[in-house]
Amino acid sequence: MATALTSHLSEESLALALDSFRSALGSEAVIAGEDELREFRDPFAFAASDDYTASAVLMPETVDEIQQIVRIANEHKVPLWTHATGMNNGYGGPAPRLKGSVIVSLRRMNRVLEIDEDSAFAVVEPGVRWFDLYDALRAGGHRLMVSVPDLGWGSVVGNALENGATYLPTGSDMAAACGMEVVLPSGEVLRTGMGAMPGNRAWHVYKRSLGPSLDTLFMQSNFGIVTKMGVWLMPYPECYMPLWLRVWNDDDLPALVETLRALMIERTIENVPQVWNTIASASVLSSRSAWYEGEEPIPDGRIDEMARELEVGRWMMRFALYGDEAVVDHRFRKVKEAFGRIPGAEVWGEKHSPDAFAELENPHERVQAGVPNLDINQMTGWYGGEEGGHIGFSPVARLTGPDAVALRDLIRGLVEQRARLDYAAVLIPTNARSFIHVTMVIFDTKNEAEVRRAYDTSRLLVSECAKHGYGEYRAHLDFMDLAAEQYSFGDRAYMRFVETIKDAVDPNGILSPGKQGIWPRSLREPAEA
Amino acid sequence: MATALTSHLSEESLALALDSFRSALGSEAVIAGEDELREFRDPFAFAASDDYTASAVLMPETVDEIQQIVRIANEHKVPLWTHATGMNNGYGGPAPRLKGSVIVSLRRMNRVLEIDEDSAFAVVEPGVRWFDLYDALRAGGHRLMVSVPDLGWGSVVGNALENGATYLPTGSDMAAACGMEVVLPSGEVLRTGMGAMPGNRAWHVYKRSLGPSLDTLFMQSNFGIVTKMGVWLMPYPECYMPLWLRVWNDDDLPALVETLRALMIERTIENVPQVWNTIASASVLSSRSAWYEGEEPIPDGRIDEMARELEVGRWMMRFALYGDEAVVDHRFRKVKEAFGRIPGAEVWGEKHSPDAFAELENPHERVQAGVPNLDINQMTGWYGGEEGGHIGFSPVARLTGPDAVALRDLIRGLVEQRARLDYAAVLIPTNARSFIHVTMVIFDTKNEAEVRRAYDTSRLLVSECAKHGYGEYRAHLDFMDLAAEQYSFGDRAYMRFVETIKDAVDPNGILSPGKQGIWPRSLREPAEA
Repeated sequence: MATALTSHLSEESLALALDSFRSALGSEAVIAGEDELREFRDPFAFAASDDYTASAVLMPETVDEIQQIVRIANEHKVPLWTHATGMNNGYGGPAPRLKGSVIVSLRRMNRVLEIDEDSAFAVVEPGVRWFDLYDALRAGGHRLMVSVPDLGWGSVVGNALENGATYLPTGSDMAAACGMEVVLPSGEVLRTGMGAMPGNRAWHVYKRSLGPSLDTLFMQSNFGIVTKMGVWLMPYPECYMPLWLRVWNDDDLPALVETLRALMIERTIENVPQVWNTIASASVLSSRSAWYEGEEPIPDGRIDEMARELEVGRWMMRFALYGDEAVVDHRFRKVKEAFGRIPGAEVWGEKHSPDAFAELENPHERVQAGVPNLDINQMTGWYGGEEGGHIGFSPVARLTGPDAVALRDLIRGLVEQRARLDYAAVLIPTNARSFIHVTMVIFDTKNEAEVRRAYDTSRLLVSECAKHGYGEYRAHLDFMDLAAEQYSFGDRAYMRFVETIKDAVDPNGILSPGKQGIWPRSLREPAEA
Repeated sequence: MATALTSHLSEESLALALDSFRSALGSEAVIAGEDELREFRDPFAFAASDDYTASAVLMPETVDEIQQIVRIANEHKVPLWTHATGMNNGYGGPAPRLKGSVIVSLRRMNRVLEIDEDSAFAVVEPGVRWFDLYDALRAGGHRLMVSVPDLGWGSVVGNALENGATYLPTGSDMAAACGMEVVLPSGEVLRTGMGAMPGNRAWHVYKRSLGPSLDTLFMQSNFGIVTKMGVWLMPYPECYMPLWLRVWNDDDLPALVETLRALMIERTIENVPQVWNTIASASVLSSRSAWYEGEEPIPDGRIDEMARELEVGRWMMRFALYGDEAVVDHRFRKVKEAFGRIPGAEVWGEKHSPDAFAELENPHERVQAGVPNLDINQMTGWYGGEEGGHIGFSPVARLTGPDAVALRDLIRGLVEQRARLDYAAVLIPTNARSFIHVTMVIFDTKNEAEVRRAYDTSRLLVSECAKHGYGEYRAHLDFMDLAAEQYSFGDRAYMRFVETIKDAVDPNGILSPGKQGIWPRSLREPAEA
């Protein structure tokens, strides 16, 4: 554990480095004022905390500027922390793991470099948000959709690099990214896959290399700064049918999951569904105070009432069908029949043609149509209104009924008993065989005791779930080390292998120290001793 | 280039190492006799060549034995060369890149460790052949299919590690592998992905890690010996419909390719098709001497006659539909209509239920039903009968009409004019956006001049195709260095990054020196100087 680590960088070295950064980028691209830096902190940390604060923020606009930043950082041994747009607030937002790091914010590298209508892909810089790519597709008159996540303010590249979920068929199994350009810790530029051959047109259409394929090595790691990435798009289908499944009993969950897996494995359902529990659904539609005044977690009886009044059931699944109308009709009948075997279950939805996508009223139905929005962000206000916060705790499991029930019971127990908070869950089967149990630990950022309970419980969730064989797919800044420690097979063989690569490719340890628990040698040894 | 490299190992060191290997494995697991070693050479090299000969072959049966092998190899600095079953003869078969290497043959590690009916995956050791996994599925009464390649004698793991194509929907985009166990050059055992957490049930169902994901780093590389791998399976569909498309003009190719891409991107065609030219089709069904006596390449007029007499057209595509009968029927109509816009094109096929898969007469239709066989291996005999050989030359391209035509013309020109051989091509779109142009350079292994022309031309193909931006997806032993050199962007940034990893994780350079052009430092420096 290295929670309180601070950069070894002296004030003098930092000052010298900042001078060099200003010379290289221009002074307006170097942010070092205390007030301005406040915006680059974990937005939901308790206000008095100064963990995860940066020394400065750099805003490069070109690959060449990033190369210069990396060279200066090597010279002065400055720890850098890269974010694309830094908007994933449930995992720490824009803030660095190591206090005193200099943030490299890629928000100004926001060009859509290419859209290929024939082969249905785009090439984007890391500052391109879902909103930007969507706008570029519409402005160019392309009949193409991008697989988007729930919130449109994030980065296409950043999401891919964190293994983030998106919800169209092209996002299934997180398979939309293809072909990267990366600035290495040495300042050199590497292109992955076919891109390593000058002039190769298959860079963004074929995922492997001659030799080992590196794209996933640059995901959730600190071996390079990704400056370009290909993303696969989906042509407009003849018909899009967003669907809803609702069940009324908490213990309908295993039957729902077993039925879903069969439909996904046979490719009847091809997109990435989401399964929401009542509290999660209610948090999008309302505030807690409308339902319950007690400080203890809302009891089951009241949750049942909420389920009925809001018509969201105890579990509600969003999913969608895409394709020729004849195929969509067949599949709808099949899906309805399969889930219909669960007593009280209902399946419904309406068909739409591409012209209607942007006008759909329900934000979930827009997300699954590739239309980015921010409506679902409302859920963070469950406890604290505009000052509400949340932590994402997200273990992976097999997509089976027993696994879903085991995780539900384990996590609900700890969230309710230890954090004394409501259990808000969204289950996301990113492929047909596994799902991510996104636990939204929602709290009021003004209530220090509640914030502390939320963080302490999230930490406990990491270790308790690991005891049962469930590990996080990504980790909040505060739990990166702890989450990584759980992957301990073979005396930490995985992490030691990763550390060996880190030391070899980044000998000065300048890139994102501590990212997903990967520390450079200089910061690792004290912890190991 | 390092074509003639030989291991630095002295005879004394080798003898000491072999003693240790015998102690560890038992003497029957160590093969060192000259006659027996002959079976582990490139089967199609000209008989007098002794490039790529091994000093010995080790046949471990357990992970523990592999760990011991690696430790002994480190002690004596023995270069090892791993193959799974070593049956991919078009790329060099079982032979090592570095003469004098000790082969680690994994043929005896042939256990199917697990078959999970619910989540539709298996876990296999590297010596498990497609035949073995198929047999295990049938013996267990599982209603599951495995996505197989054309020849059933190869290894499930070996194929995945080489980015080999397989042809069911689960094989699309080479996406069937999930979760590995690897013996590292240090002798330690690493598990990738969720497997790095003890007891994690999601190892073979979720493809990413917390932190960087390493599965593809162990593909086409020499960073570890894979000892277990998960492979995703496909439940039996209600209906399977293998289909054929035939066109009569060589220049129907671009229309075929453009139509195919649209149908694949919209997921109407979900499997991995193959597009065969006349010569390739004819080589499976007949010998060259039945058609042509001249020494020069068969001229177009005669190829047209072959196309008609054998009813294989100038291009013939095999592909298949899978799913509910209603969906298959809809898609068949759609496919027939789409390709029907090409004058003279025909599409046909018949529907089958799972009970009939093993009995299908046409081997291609069995392959696409997941039933492994060896019938297509016949094609190697085009020139030399039972002593025929072939080299695979396989560049990747975007799946577009212009790219298909450009590659066809470039490769046909060189094969006909330089090698004075017939142009046999099989185009394999491993995903909806790209294809691999598998060039079968077929020759008579008894004809030394013909063998030399075939090898020389294949070498020329590597560099000439690269000039046009087309790179190989895998390379024959003889062209590994040359093929890798073409990926030279950024002053070889990709290869230097890979070499940095190699030196860090395998400091003694014992694992598969030269694999895909990756040499350890000790063997690299002379070439660099």
